[in-house]
Amino acid sequence: MDIQNLRWWGWGTLDQSFDLKGRTAFWPGLERMLELPTERESRPPVTLEEITLRPTRLDDRRLTSLRKLLDDGAVFTDRRARVEHAYGKSYRDLVRVRAGYVPHPPDAVVYPTDENQVAALLAWAADSDLAVIPFGGGSSVLGGVEPQPGDRPCITLDLARLDGVLSVDPISRTARIQAGATGPEVEAQLNTQGFTLGHFPQSFEFSTLGGWIVTRAAGQNSIGYGKIEDLTQAVRVVTPVGIVETRDTPATAAGPSIRRLMVGSEGTYGVLTEATMRLHPLPEVQDYRGLLFRTLADGLAAFRDLMQSGLHPAIVRLSDPPETAAYALMSHEHHGLRALFDKVLTGYLGFRGYGLDGSCLMILGFDGNPDEVEYRLNLALEICRDHRGLHLGRSLGRSWKRDRFAQPYLRDDLLENGVLVDTLETATTWSNLTSVYQAMTAAMKSAIAATGGGPGVVLTHVSHAYPHGASLYSTFLGRQTSPDPLENQEQWRAIKRETTEAILAAGGTLSHHHGVGRDHAPWLEEEIGPVGMKVLQTLKQTLDPTGIMNPGILLPS
Amino acid sequence: MDIQNLRWWGWGTLDQSFDLKGRTAFWPGLERMLELPTERESRPPVTLEEITLRPTRLDDRRLTSLRKLLDDGAVFTDRRARVEHAYGKSYRDLVRVRAGYVPHPPDAVVYPTDENQVAALLAWAADSDLAVIPFGGGSSVLGGVEPQPGDRPCITLDLARLDGVLSVDPISRTARIQAGATGPEVEAQLNTQGFTLGHFPQSFEFSTLGGWIVTRAAGQNSIGYGKIEDLTQAVRVVTPVGIVETRDTPATAAGPSIRRLMVGSEGTYGVLTEATMRLHPLPEVQDYRGLLFRTLADGLAAFRDLMQSGLHPAIVRLSDPPETAAYALMSHEHHGLRALFDKVLTGYLGFRGYGLDGSCLMILGFDGNPDEVEYRLNLALEICRDHRGLHLGRSLGRSWKRDRFAQPYLRDDLLENGVLVDTLETATTWSNLTSVYQAMTAAMKSAIAATGGGPGVVLTHVSHAYPHGASLYSTFLGRQTSPDPLENQEQWRAIKRETTEAILAAGGTLSHHHGVGRDHAPWLEEEIGPVGMKVLQTLKQTLDPTGIMNPGILLPS
Repeated sequence: MDIQNLRWWGWGTLDQSFDLKGRTAFWPGLERMLELPTERESRPPVTLEEITLRPTRLDDRRLTSLRKLLDDGAVFTDRRARVEHAYGKSYRDLVRVRAGYVPHPPDAVVYPTDENQVAALLAWAADSDLAVIPFGGGSSVLGGVEPQPGDRPCITLDLARLDGVLSVDPISRTARIQAGATGPEVEAQLNTQGFTLGHFPQSFEFSTLGGWIVTRAAGQNSIGYGKIEDLTQAVRVVTPVGIVETRDTPATAAGPSIRRLMVGSEGTYGVLTEATMRLHPLPEVQDYRGLLFRTLADGLAAFRDLMQSGLHPAIVRLSDPPETAAYALMSHEHHGLRALFDKVLTGYLGFRGYGLDGSCLMILGFDGNPDEVEYRLNLALEICRDHRGLHLGRSLGRSWKRDRFAQPYLRDDLLENGVLVDTLETATTWSNLTSVYQAMTAAMKSAIAATGGGPGVVLTHVSHAYPHGASLYSTFLGRQTSPDPLENQEQWRAIKRETTEAILAAGGTLSHHHGVGRDHAPWLEEEIGPVGMKVLQTLKQTLDPTGIMNPGILLPS
Repeated sequence: MDIQNLRWWGWGTLDQSFDLKGRTAFWPGLERMLELPTERESRPPVTLEEITLRPTRLDDRRLTSLRKLLDDGAVFTDRRARVEHAYGKSYRDLVRVRAGYVPHPPDAVVYPTDENQVAALLAWAADSDLAVIPFGGGSSVLGGVEPQPGDRPCITLDLARLDGVLSVDPISRTARIQAGATGPEVEAQLNTQGFTLGHFPQSFEFSTLGGWIVTRAAGQNSIGYGKIEDLTQAVRVVTPVGIVETRDTPATAAGPSIRRLMVGSEGTYGVLTEATMRLHPLPEVQDYRGLLFRTLADGLAAFRDLMQSGLHPAIVRLSDPPETAAYALMSHEHHGLRALFDKVLTGYLGFRGYGLDGSCLMILGFDGNPDEVEYRLNLALEICRDHRGLHLGRSLGRSWKRDRFAQPYLRDDLLENGVLVDTLETATTWSNLTSVYQAMTAAMKSAIAATGGGPGVVLTHVSHAYPHGASLYSTFLGRQTSPDPLENQEQWRAIKRETTEAILAAGGTLSHHHGVGRDHAPWLEEEIGPVGMKVLQTLKQTLDPTGIMNPGILLPS
């Protein structure tokens, strides 16, 4: 790994960006829907050099001790390292860093090479009363890696050097993997041995195994491969009071699950250094199809039947009518959903009652060996037909797969154009799904309008599901009310607050796979109750008695 | 429910018993294998009236308060109620109660009718410094419901009156069920609505939903339907410091799982009063087959392939050669495995290399709709053929299903004949399974011999499995060295100790589905480490600050 690789979305510095060439309907459509002024002042990000950074609060004595604990070249206090580790990748983070607003950067960024260095660092930090923030890919969208304001200096512990697959057990289909391995690093090392972890979150290129586990992440194929907690067989966590290691066993009845306490702990109990993960064989084929449903109700009914059918698809992803229309808007003029509609099917589809106003796009895919995939896919398509699902063939499945990690890159363009954009997600039971969907999307729309952000657009999909319920994932867009990063934050905060309260009141969970971090912490008590909070507070006190680990995360400060 | 129904195995008081008629080879075979004297003194149990019981230590004032808290007729201090609730159902429990050795019975047994009464009782008990033991079916085999010796009086809280399915959500396929519902009560109420929980432990007839959840149980169909923790969507637990209620959601990322802390807590944090459970539709067909493998290695290879195939059988159960031979020994002379061998297949099987000395019996079954079951079963049988598995047809599958809950009843006869019999179980990864199997069975055999119990017999099967590993379940039999219950306990304890240490040293988990209770508590630290123990101690202190809940369970006293 290159530890000085600038891992940053929304800053225009990555090699890859969202390619809008050929997607000619995108900006005109967005301007119309968001009521954006057609003459817009561009809002480009500041350069790194323009950011004024508070000097590190670690004096030379402390920095020298720190350098002694770790390897040469493992301790950074330069502007670039500190800015890169000051925030996660939420909308709120991007508006702040793009404006050069970085009042609370970490005082140093360190890159330990092994577990002993991690343990030594925590002991030293506890002695020195320094906060420590474990940092994987830094793709938190809930402030999960952001230093706590205040007088206590803070060290960000970047796990990038712990990036190896330590061993693969092909008989048991498990692998011991270090926490700092990114998605591509995990997959590259496993693929050579014929396996995959099957965990592909949208942040796949940057996020890490440890980050996935401590935030209870879900990949885009979670339906087929499982949420990260289901993929995690055992963990090893360095806490300030010692190492927690859980037994490598597929199941146990040895008391309450310590493993499940570490999953979701968001770096507040210690540093997860490695985990034993459950693997799947690399699928021989992946067959992903597009389908169109006349109404959201039809699509949801088909989705539920698929999840309760025992057919085990690898992916099912249903977009609501606004998101389906947005796909068409965003698609390339010569291929993609829009081309399908514009050039081939419009008349036919309209005649049969499908249109871009009310129809819902589904991506449905199976992974496995060819015979199995064919058998299951046919049964699944039959289920979809029972709900008037129209099979659109393979091309949309392919284009979805090609672009699956691309959307976050679009934020550069949106922010540059004064567009507010963020996502919120939840989960609930099937019987409660429509009710949460309505509460969530209505709250977003009305909150955007109330902040002066215009009519707003809310695009929602269901993409993680179970026999007993599903998640809802909404992207909301509106007009920024100001170029000022603090005002942008306030606008965003108001929408977030209204929507989160609507989700919880409707019975949805606080988060299905983003986690809690700093942004959701005020609502955690509503989710788990006062006794649940007491449990988490006690655990924090037990495992991190001096409170050095990622302060302000999970528990409100 | 009839709260005065004597729920007792091993005491000869149940309507049902293990019918040995026609199983003519059983006793001669057992006599030979265990080297039992053919002339044996019968060791019948004492009658209830013969048991001398310490009077209740609750004075009239306390009993009056207790009766005020609960309904009329909800407080029992009679001999029968107190003896019935003094022990679980382990071998150690049976030898003690059959000998009339009951030095530490509960001082009262109470039957609350709702959650408010449970909460009031806990508050009152904390004030009065009384221990409270939540009691479901009382089928713990690890001392999980046994009062702690000592001066503090103890109340057993039997949940038998909380036995209802409160509501069924057919869309989400979930149901809210009260903790005291037994297996038949759960299934009867769900079946009328077309659903099943699919949880069929051997104790199914007596054990309860709450007991299953707090001990992390697994049913005989756990391969198809999931272990109880996977079937549990949300829980409600009355603790001494308030109610813990987790959100009814199929998944969440809202911090470490509070639900998973309550699962496996064995009544030490509070009383689980209800849970939202994940249901399955009642299968249209259940097709269970018998197969024979030449060697254990062949059978295990087929089993692993089945679990990693994605075919999702409802049940796979592989007996090792000794257990396979024992099935033949125990089977009816005119049907069952023995008849198959004796009368039809011996010559043919012997010719092809199968015999009762080294072969392994597998039960393989699928649940579902007829087409799906046929498709999957055929692929599964193909996998078995690849490992030289010989298909024996449906009859063995049927007889296994018929007798699936019967074996514990046999203990009456065995104990009456001076036979020591108990079970131990664990789980590990596929790659480590043979090594744990060898360590576990060898430790049992040598420990039985070392205690003077003769050559002993160890019968093992693999019946709960996952893509990444499986459990091992061993029944061990030997000669009791004495009619004295205390000596029987010591003999049993020595075998248990040697075997548990061998399991842990080989990398197996302390328990796959029996739990920890009192008997495994000394080894919990080896399983979860000193930091894990600190976590559990802190949780106990937080949720039960006066230590009234099931003292001595999970954490060594």
